[in-house]
Amino acid sequence: MSRFMNSKYRGMEAYTPGEQPTDMKYIKLNTNESPYPPSPKVLEAVNCTEVSRLNLYPDPTCKGLKESLANLFGVKRENIFVSNGSDDILNFSFMAFCEGSKRKVRFPEISYGFYSVYAELHGVDYTAFPLMEDFSINISDYMKNDATVVIANPNAPTGLALSLEQIEDIVKANPDYIVLIDEAYVDFGAESAVELTKKYDNLLVVGTFSKSRSMAGARLGYAVGSSELIADLEKIKYSTNPYNINRLTLLAGEAALAENSYYMDNCKKIIESREYTQTELKNLGFDMTDSKANFIFAKSDSISGKELYERLKARGILVRHFDKEKIKEYNRITVGTKEQMKALVEAISDILEERKNEKK
Amino acid sequence: MSRFMNSKYRGMEAYTPGEQPTDMKYIKLNTNESPYPPSPKVLEAVNCTEVSRLNLYPDPTCKGLKESLANLFGVKRENIFVSNGSDDILNFSFMAFCEGSKRKVRFPEISYGFYSVYAELHGVDYTAFPLMEDFSINISDYMKNDATVVIANPNAPTGLALSLEQIEDIVKANPDYIVLIDEAYVDFGAESAVELTKKYDNLLVVGTFSKSRSMAGARLGYAVGSSELIADLEKIKYSTNPYNINRLTLLAGEAALAENSYYMDNCKKIIESREYTQTELKNLGFDMTDSKANFIFAKSDSISGKELYERLKARGILVRHFDKEKIKEYNRITVGTKEQMKALVEAISDILEERKNEKK
Repeated sequence: MSRFMNSKYRGMEAYTPGEQPTDMKYIKLNTNESPYPPSPKVLEAVNCTEVSRLNLYPDPTCKGLKESLANLFGVKRENIFVSNGSDDILNFSFMAFCEGSKRKVRFPEISYGFYSVYAELHGVDYTAFPLMEDFSINISDYMKNDATVVIANPNAPTGLALSLEQIEDIVKANPDYIVLIDEAYVDFGAESAVELTKKYDNLLVVGTFSKSRSMAGARLGYAVGSSELIADLEKIKYSTNPYNINRLTLLAGEAALAENSYYMDNCKKIIESREYTQTELKNLGFDMTDSKANFIFAKSDSISGKELYERLKARGILVRHFDKEKIKEYNRITVGTKEQMKALVEAISDILEERKNEKK
Repeated sequence: MSRFMNSKYRGMEAYTPGEQPTDMKYIKLNTNESPYPPSPKVLEAVNCTEVSRLNLYPDPTCKGLKESLANLFGVKRENIFVSNGSDDILNFSFMAFCEGSKRKVRFPEISYGFYSVYAELHGVDYTAFPLMEDFSINISDYMKNDATVVIANPNAPTGLALSLEQIEDIVKANPDYIVLIDEAYVDFGAESAVELTKKYDNLLVVGTFSKSRSMAGARLGYAVGSSELIADLEKIKYSTNPYNINRLTLLAGEAALAENSYYMDNCKKIIESREYTQTELKNLGFDMTDSKANFIFAKSDSISGKELYERLKARGILVRHFDKEKIKEYNRITVGTKEQMKALVEAISDILEERKNEKK
C-alpha cells in the first residue's frame, strides 16, 4: 500500500475471485462458467469486419442490446440497464440505493461475497443475517422496511431458491427501500422476479450473461426495473465510465438474445447433469442442498471440505472451497458437461477409496 | 430520478460524451478516434476460436497484457495497471489518491470534463485553475504540495503540451501528493513522463488504447507507477469488478503491442494531416493552438464556434463544440485521414463563402 492511499480504503478487504491456475490443464468446476460455447450467431456477429471497427467508440446508450432485452422481458427500453458485468451493476446499486447510516442494507451472511465488499467500499452500514440451520433464508429478517435488501435468488453458494411469492412478500414489506434480486443463476431452475418489476417501483432485478448465456469472458450484465431506477443507474454510469461495454460485447449480447432457445436448451442439459451428479454423490454418502443453480453445494462426513478440494485439485479438478466457518465442510462444484461430471464422480469415488486404504 | 436515490448523487452532473447521431452517415471528427483500423495481428488474435471461448472468465490478473506493456515501457509487471478504459483508471485514482478535504485535488479548469465529475462523485474538494490567456497551464498553480494534481498532457481540448522538465518540476514540488499525468494524447507529439515514474514514487502516468492504438471500441487503459501505487489501484479494482477487461480486449491489446510500429506510423500520418489542416485553416483566417494531439482547437473571427459546428453538421461533418464561456468560439476537430481533412477544409471554405453571400 502506498502512503498516498485514501484512509477510507486502507483496511478494506477486496473480493477474492476463484483461482485460475495455469500450471496444468484442469477441469474447471470452480467459477460457475457454462461448459458450452456461445451460440452460432455470436460467433458470426464477432467477425473480422467488426474487429476492424474497434477504432470507433461503442454506442454508450447500448440501444440495440437494450431493445433485445426489453423484447425478451416484455418491458420498455427505459426499463433496462446494461453494464460491464453484473458486478458493475451491483456496485452502482450499492452507490445509488444505499447511503451510510441513512439507507442501510441487509443481505444474507452466506451469499455472494461481493455484497459486503460493496457495502464497505461505499461506507454503507449493513447487517448480514445468518441463514437458517438448513441454509435457507429467514424471510422475516427482510420484512422491516428500514433498509435496502439484497438477495441472490437462487442464493450462492447454497443454490437454494426463494419462491416468487416469498420475493413478492419481501418487496411489499419494504415500500420505502429497494429490494435488489440478483438473478445470476435464475435460469437453472428458479423463478424470475422480472414480471414483478412492472408492479413494484422498489424492485430491481439484476442478471448476467456470464452463466446461462455462456459469456463470462465478454462481461455483460443487465438490470430490469422502473424507468426512475434505471435513470439513477445511468447517472452513476455516466459519472464513471459511459463507454463501459465494448463494441464486440454489445454485438455478442444482441446475437445471443436472438438465439435464446440454444441457451435454454443448455440450461436443461446442465440441470440433467446436476441431477445425475447429485444422485451419484448421494450414493457416495454426500449431503447436498437442493440447488437450483449451475452448481452443487456438497459435504461428506468422511472427508473434510478442504481435503476434498485439495485432493481433487491434485487430480486436475478445480472446485471452490470457502474458509468461512459455517460452510467450510462444503465445496461448491460447478455443473459442467455430463463427461466432466462423470470424471468428477469417479475422482471423488477414488479419493474416498484411497483414504480408506491409507487408514488401514 | 427515483425517491430511493442516494442524496450524495442527487445534484451530480454526469459527463456528456460526444454525440453519436445515427440519422445519417457523418465524417466523425468529434470524439478523437483514430481513423485507422487496428493492426493485422489484432484482427488475427480476435478470431472464431477465441470467441467460442467466451464462456470462460478472462484472466483477472491480466498477466500477458501487463507483461507486454512492461516490455514496451521498460518497467516491471508490478508497475503496470490495466483497466476497462482510462476513464476507469482516472475514477479509481480519484478514489484512491484523493480524500474529501484531507487530500484535495487540483486540475486545470479547461481540461478533460471528467476530472470535476470524479471529484464530485467521490466528494473530493477541488480547485479548477483557469488557464493563461493563451490557454497554456500556469505551472505555479500546481507547485504547492497541498493537493493531488491531475494534468492531461497534452491538455484537451487545447492540445497544448507541457515539457518533461515542467512535469518533473511539478512532481518534485509535490512529494506528499500524487501527480497524475493523463497521457491519452501523448503519442501525437508530446513527451511521455513514463521514464520519470522510475525516479518518483508520487507520479502516476495514465494512458489509453483508444486514440493512437485504434481501439476506442475495445475499452482498454493502463497506468504506470510505483508498485505501491499499482497495488492501491488493484485493491480498488478487486473491490469493484475484478474481471473488468473482457477476454477479447485482453487479446487485442497484447496483439497491438506486438505491432507497435504500425501505430507509430499512423501517428506520423495523423501529425502530417494535422499540419496540413492547420495550414489550410490558417489560410482561411482561423486562430489555432499549437496542438500536439490528434485534434485541432480552432476559432475564426468571421463565424461563431456554435454556428460553424452546426453548419458542418448539416453538411455531414461532426466536430465537438463546448458551451463553456471561455472556449465557446472554438471547435475541437479530430484529425482524421488526409481525405477527411480535405473534405473538412473544403466544407469550411464553402461555409465561409456561403455566409458572405447570405450577408449581401
